[in-house]
Amino acid sequence: MAPASNRQFLLKRRPTGLVTRDDFECRETAIPSPGSGEALVRNLFLSFDPSQRIWITDMPGYMPPVAIGEVMRAHGIGQVILSNDPQLPVGSLVHGLIGWQDYVVSSKSVPFGFTPLPLRLPVPPEVMLSVLGMTGITAYFGLREIGAPKPGETVVISAAAGAVGSIAGQIAKIEGCRVVGLAGSDDKCTWLTQDLGFDAAINYKAADWKKQLRAACPKGVDIDFENVGGEIMQAVFSMLNLHARVVLCGLITGYNGDNPTASLVDLGPILVKRVRIEGFIVLDYAKRYLEAVTQLGQWLAAGKIKHRETIVEGLEHAPETLNRLFDGDKLGKLLLKIAEAPIKP
Amino acid sequence: MAPASNRQFLLKRRPTGLVTRDDFECRETAIPSPGSGEALVRNLFLSFDPSQRIWITDMPGYMPPVAIGEVMRAHGIGQVILSNDPQLPVGSLVHGLIGWQDYVVSSKSVPFGFTPLPLRLPVPPEVMLSVLGMTGITAYFGLREIGAPKPGETVVISAAAGAVGSIAGQIAKIEGCRVVGLAGSDDKCTWLTQDLGFDAAINYKAADWKKQLRAACPKGVDIDFENVGGEIMQAVFSMLNLHARVVLCGLITGYNGDNPTASLVDLGPILVKRVRIEGFIVLDYAKRYLEAVTQLGQWLAAGKIKHRETIVEGLEHAPETLNRLFDGDKLGKLLLKIAEAPIKP
Repeated sequence: MAPASNRQFLLKRRPTGLVTRDDFECRETAIPSPGSGEALVRNLFLSFDPSQRIWITDMPGYMPPVAIGEVMRAHGIGQVILSNDPQLPVGSLVHGLIGWQDYVVSSKSVPFGFTPLPLRLPVPPEVMLSVLGMTGITAYFGLREIGAPKPGETVVISAAAGAVGSIAGQIAKIEGCRVVGLAGSDDKCTWLTQDLGFDAAINYKAADWKKQLRAACPKGVDIDFENVGGEIMQAVFSMLNLHARVVLCGLITGYNGDNPTASLVDLGPILVKRVRIEGFIVLDYAKRYLEAVTQLGQWLAAGKIKHRETIVEGLEHAPETLNRLFDGDKLGKLLLKIAEAPIKP
Repeated sequence: MAPASNRQFLLKRRPTGLVTRDDFECRETAIPSPGSGEALVRNLFLSFDPSQRIWITDMPGYMPPVAIGEVMRAHGIGQVILSNDPQLPVGSLVHGLIGWQDYVVSSKSVPFGFTPLPLRLPVPPEVMLSVLGMTGITAYFGLREIGAPKPGETVVISAAAGAVGSIAGQIAKIEGCRVVGLAGSDDKCTWLTQDLGFDAAINYKAADWKKQLRAACPKGVDIDFENVGGEIMQAVFSMLNLHARVVLCGLITGYNGDNPTASLVDLGPILVKRVRIEGFIVLDYAKRYLEAVTQLGQWLAAGKIKHRETIVEGLEHAPETLNRLFDGDKLGKLLLKIAEAPIKP
């Protein structure tokens, strides 16, 4: 049953470290009414991504920070329940920056707007936020375009049991590479090697993880798909081969502001080894999303890519869910279910 | 008149900071005799390049360090005076790692061997070590291949009055870019803007150089042709635009070992701005040298590229000449003349 009011999480102050409930104001307001050319969307699933933690700092980024008093920004999927917009008929599922709230209006003030999902989804809607969404597309372009893998090369993936890392590693396997993952528990490592086909996975909480990493990469590292930064990045960088590529996708150990050296590197070895480091954000490939989704869909259908979602239930848990991106308590894509997914047509 | 013995500088110990004469042993030995298939070369010009300072550290590099007791390694040009090698007839000029000495034998133990220069040189032989040698080729591939300039973009060149920087800046002008140089004296800056056509040049010893740099780059920086590292690199990095490219050609402020943070950078902004940083060494383009030399030769003939050489005379001055790469006391390419260039055919 749909709530009669709109619960919203507004940013109250800029957090330090992991977020707390006190960093947000949770309020209930009237369900908004769509104006001319607009639609009212019932939010179903929220995506949790490390970039959200950056959006609530005052760091300059690829989008302006979430303002104090603004609804917390997040990607997600919802369903149109009232519509004055012929592009978004009632019943259709849409993707966009729905925010931490029960309802959103598809007004022109929402950056990037809302994109209708195909009518007959090949997968449950939440997968449109993971393998077939920004997550999978990030892995696809990051690994293939920036990483430029060649068969037989060694690819190391940090946060390998995470949403992007787990897909990137499987694409690297499809490309014929040796794939080594770093993750934060033995269970995650087992999932990577047993289920996803990684050649090796190393629990970076093990005392001898650096030694294990060296042993897992006897020919050095040709591609670092970098999601975390800090000590893990330093260890991988020390093993980079001549002409290695660093897909700089994330530096999450620094996102909570408590590790100011997380993103520092020494360019000396980068010069000598002629390494290419390239910052990467999936938005740069917006014109080619269809290519990625088509290929990812084929791999998914063929069983070449497996995926897992960790799904939290209840909008009220949004703040603590964000922290699970950083404390490691999740597997694959982290989602929050606000409301039951609609009946498929 | 040719000396009757071979003066050689051998590396005696690994220097700390700028080199001193005591870091080398200067000895006189008999002029070597070429064996079967070898040639004896009278050395004429030594090239001085920042990489030589790295070769005498024990840092891993793209070549093994110069061993203690080994002749100091350096590129240069010589003339064949005795030959048992039909590829290197007497009288021909050759380029290669001739070292800090009066004579060298073209034995197979010399890395990369010796390359004969064309019989009819279009320029004085020393220019074959500057614009038409490794220096010019480095500028050509670094700027064009790694920098990938587009007309109207802003290019910043550090050590812009140096051998590589002065050529790279002129190529960037040919490519239609706005070119801003950083150099260490007002005279150098005047040379860059008045003679070489740079749009702006900033003396980094001026108190307000950072402010001047910002003013000279009103649209930010699209390409950083990085030769120096340290504070200059940090200032340029703070102005990088979305999708900027960093041609990582040198980090000379760190080469004497007295500036351990010279090459540290924060990858956070690199990620957010999707910058590409790529280490670069001209050897990677060995198969395409002819392309570069041909194009550089055309530009030179057309007056589109100007050049200067700072020429020190006398092999005995080799150690202190090396330091002039780092204390700024030179303009353009730094060379040492060991013996009078031969009469042109």
